[in-house]
Amino acid sequence: MNPTTPDTLVEHLRGALGPTAVLTGPEDTDGYTADWRGAYRGAALAVVRPGSTDEVATVVRLCRKAGVSIVPQGGNTGMCGGGVPDASATQVVLSTTRMRRVREVDPANDAITVDAGVTLDAVHEAARAHGRMFPLTLGSQGSCTIGGNVATNAGGAGVLRYGMMRDLVLGLEVVLPDGQVWDGLRGLRKDNTGYDLKQLFVGAEGTLGIVTAAVLRLFPETPARATVWVALPDLGAGVALLELLKKHAGPRLGAYELVSRTALDLVLEHTVGAHDPFGQSHPWYGLIELEDADDAARLEEVVEAGVGAAFEQELVTDAVVAGSPAQRAALWGLREGISEAQNAVGASLKQDVSVPISSLAAFTADVDAAVEAVLPGVRRVTYGHVGDGNLHYNLSKPDGADDAGLLDASDALTKAVYDVVAAYDGSLSAEHGLGRTKTAAAAAYKDPVELALMRTVKAALDPAGTMNPGVLLA
Amino acid sequence: MNPTTPDTLVEHLRGALGPTAVLTGPEDTDGYTADWRGAYRGAALAVVRPGSTDEVATVVRLCRKAGVSIVPQGGNTGMCGGGVPDASATQVVLSTTRMRRVREVDPANDAITVDAGVTLDAVHEAARAHGRMFPLTLGSQGSCTIGGNVATNAGGAGVLRYGMMRDLVLGLEVVLPDGQVWDGLRGLRKDNTGYDLKQLFVGAEGTLGIVTAAVLRLFPETPARATVWVALPDLGAGVALLELLKKHAGPRLGAYELVSRTALDLVLEHTVGAHDPFGQSHPWYGLIELEDADDAARLEEVVEAGVGAAFEQELVTDAVVAGSPAQRAALWGLREGISEAQNAVGASLKQDVSVPISSLAAFTADVDAAVEAVLPGVRRVTYGHVGDGNLHYNLSKPDGADDAGLLDASDALTKAVYDVVAAYDGSLSAEHGLGRTKTAAAAAYKDPVELALMRTVKAALDPAGTMNPGVLLA
Repeated sequence: MNPTTPDTLVEHLRGALGPTAVLTGPEDTDGYTADWRGAYRGAALAVVRPGSTDEVATVVRLCRKAGVSIVPQGGNTGMCGGGVPDASATQVVLSTTRMRRVREVDPANDAITVDAGVTLDAVHEAARAHGRMFPLTLGSQGSCTIGGNVATNAGGAGVLRYGMMRDLVLGLEVVLPDGQVWDGLRGLRKDNTGYDLKQLFVGAEGTLGIVTAAVLRLFPETPARATVWVALPDLGAGVALLELLKKHAGPRLGAYELVSRTALDLVLEHTVGAHDPFGQSHPWYGLIELEDADDAARLEEVVEAGVGAAFEQELVTDAVVAGSPAQRAALWGLREGISEAQNAVGASLKQDVSVPISSLAAFTADVDAAVEAVLPGVRRVTYGHVGDGNLHYNLSKPDGADDAGLLDASDALTKAVYDVVAAYDGSLSAEHGLGRTKTAAAAAYKDPVELALMRTVKAALDPAGTMNPGVLLA
Repeated sequence: MNPTTPDTLVEHLRGALGPTAVLTGPEDTDGYTADWRGAYRGAALAVVRPGSTDEVATVVRLCRKAGVSIVPQGGNTGMCGGGVPDASATQVVLSTTRMRRVREVDPANDAITVDAGVTLDAVHEAARAHGRMFPLTLGSQGSCTIGGNVATNAGGAGVLRYGMMRDLVLGLEVVLPDGQVWDGLRGLRKDNTGYDLKQLFVGAEGTLGIVTAAVLRLFPETPARATVWVALPDLGAGVALLELLKKHAGPRLGAYELVSRTALDLVLEHTVGAHDPFGQSHPWYGLIELEDADDAARLEEVVEAGVGAAFEQELVTDAVVAGSPAQRAALWGLREGISEAQNAVGASLKQDVSVPISSLAAFTADVDAAVEAVLPGVRRVTYGHVGDGNLHYNLSKPDGADDAGLLDASDALTKAVYDVVAAYDGSLSAEHGLGRTKTAAAAAYKDPVELALMRTVKAALDPAGTMNPGVLLA
């Protein structure tokens, strides 16, 4: 057999995995070489679809021999282009979507073990079948995969109570850059026998190895809900209300989202059936949800006590409690409709930043001023998972302006936002990762010592630099 | 000035830090060169007590120049000798105990920033002064330090609800092996801008750098408590009861400890004032504690409903609810008195292992048989944080036998325990770390791929190998 080189690699991959697992030609690879939003369109030498961990290891070894780099891809739902190849047509995309086995559910250990290509929805379903719950929820959960959720340390609305994906992973199986398989699929809550290696791979965006399976934490189901929509005089009141609710409800506080009036206006204008719960306009709104195993009536008492105290302190100016599942869905619809409504009004620039919760109001005032100075009239469609200090600080073009103005100013606007984020010791990517979009910006703002440490880790684990190059580190 | 060598190092350290910060001679260093239990007695070239992060960096740079290795030490309360030097008298012990500043409390961000040498008690106190709570609790909290808690990824009784130290750290400041300072003191819940570097240093036992400060998560206080002591027919019932309580109480379940009859017998015999809450003997006991912001009466309803359901399923055979703080303290005393009571009956061999919670009963039956085969009549003083799958599987010498029998058999007994732990995919150090005690054993049982990965990380971050050599990795 010929030596494995870039020229013979496809042939060798076909020999090892079978012809149907190796795709070439734009008609077969187009779905894998561009991201779902169409923001990144690359080209691949091949797209491989291994069906097992051993096959992933085979692909990694063959690519390494050939000196060809690998772009791991899950459901291709990432927000920053970290799962699509560059335009060189020299990279191999490794799609995990054929690896869809739920390997084990262990209810008494509150754990589930799944292949990397299992969708988040499928994990929810498998957990539910055993009277358990997996708390990560994302808009893309029908197609995003656990491997991608691990690689990007996915967040979402449940982080306040359950943490990010990092907090939900008990063990991993990873194919390392040299093709060895690390079997770290342990279902232990406590293990202090050395470096916690799984932490290296969570959030590494495929740059240190390919996650092929994971053991995830499960939790008791919490079907009881109390959902409240409140009006707030300002963002600072929203932060104070959060503090008050944490004290009253403790870990039953499952979600705490804030929505600016600008964001709500877009939803009311562009979402069929959306209506304002209140008769008059308010600067900010909060969506509060308490959850528990049972006794929704008790939850309502708790949240009403908390909101009542907030009324007395003038932190809340109006409030409505969801009286039915339909009303609950309508309130969540106001929050979840923002992204789509924003798309309906033309060009937008979406940011996913975090700062210490205590700085949120001051940060927002400063960044509002900074973007106004760059593009007067720019609309600040601010909302987010404020319980975690995470704002989706999105911008839409000024009312009546054309898209070009915003697009031309986008670099300056992004810099204005990031400068203020840096001044508040915040993060320019709270939950979306770096991918291809934000790698250069992160490098520009990071402490050189930290950046050097990241490079040291990368060079140690992937000395050939073939694992998703250009993503996370330039 | 002379070049920095092992011979001139002490002089250079005195020049840089001042004479009182550098201790030599057994009369001054004895408290730092032996562990608190007297299990390890080493010797040091010097003990340095820097007062600031910059001084730590200076010490690291000087030691590196001299090619002298450093043993970081906090409160010297570790269980595995990871903070004491070897016997060569060539190492420098770096004690953080002069670094005791609470740098900042940010209640609205639920965060506190402290120097590494601040004690755990001092963190509790600073949090309480702002109406907050830091959930890590340990028997040694009056003297153990946050730096040591981070370096060993400390556990304790609150892990079930709040996680281990790893889960409580938002940010770190670390002096790296080359003397550079990494400032990762961010107070963010969400930050996906690269590798989560702090994870490298948590649980690394000082082998990758010296933690000089940390940002820790705070929580609302939960003064309301409901505490119940139950009798169980067997360990399997204890696991089933845990499942049932998690469903009923969710995150309000703050502690779930199991105690074997053998362990309770020792406490009843050797602890002044201890008495059996029940009139007759039972094979196992559970200590359950629910906690919340308020409404202890409601907590009692919840726990009584859970325990009531357990009675019906014959998982529980007797139960007593603490009716006062004094009764609560008495019940906790039965659990917390075990370690001391065990010391009162002569030689013992203490293990700190974990397995998946679902395997606890089968694991315990197997390991009971394995140790009985090694030393007939050996007493199994089993108890632990069963909500995390963590057993303190301790052994005491057979009744009436002398200490020598147990001590002679200790290697064989330990091997018997670890073999069964390995068969159940468990951990031979759930919360105590490896230190000098367990490093060789961990290497013997670990997957070679995992061990090689650990060595890769160590070599990359500490290429000179001067950070706590011999600990965690041989």
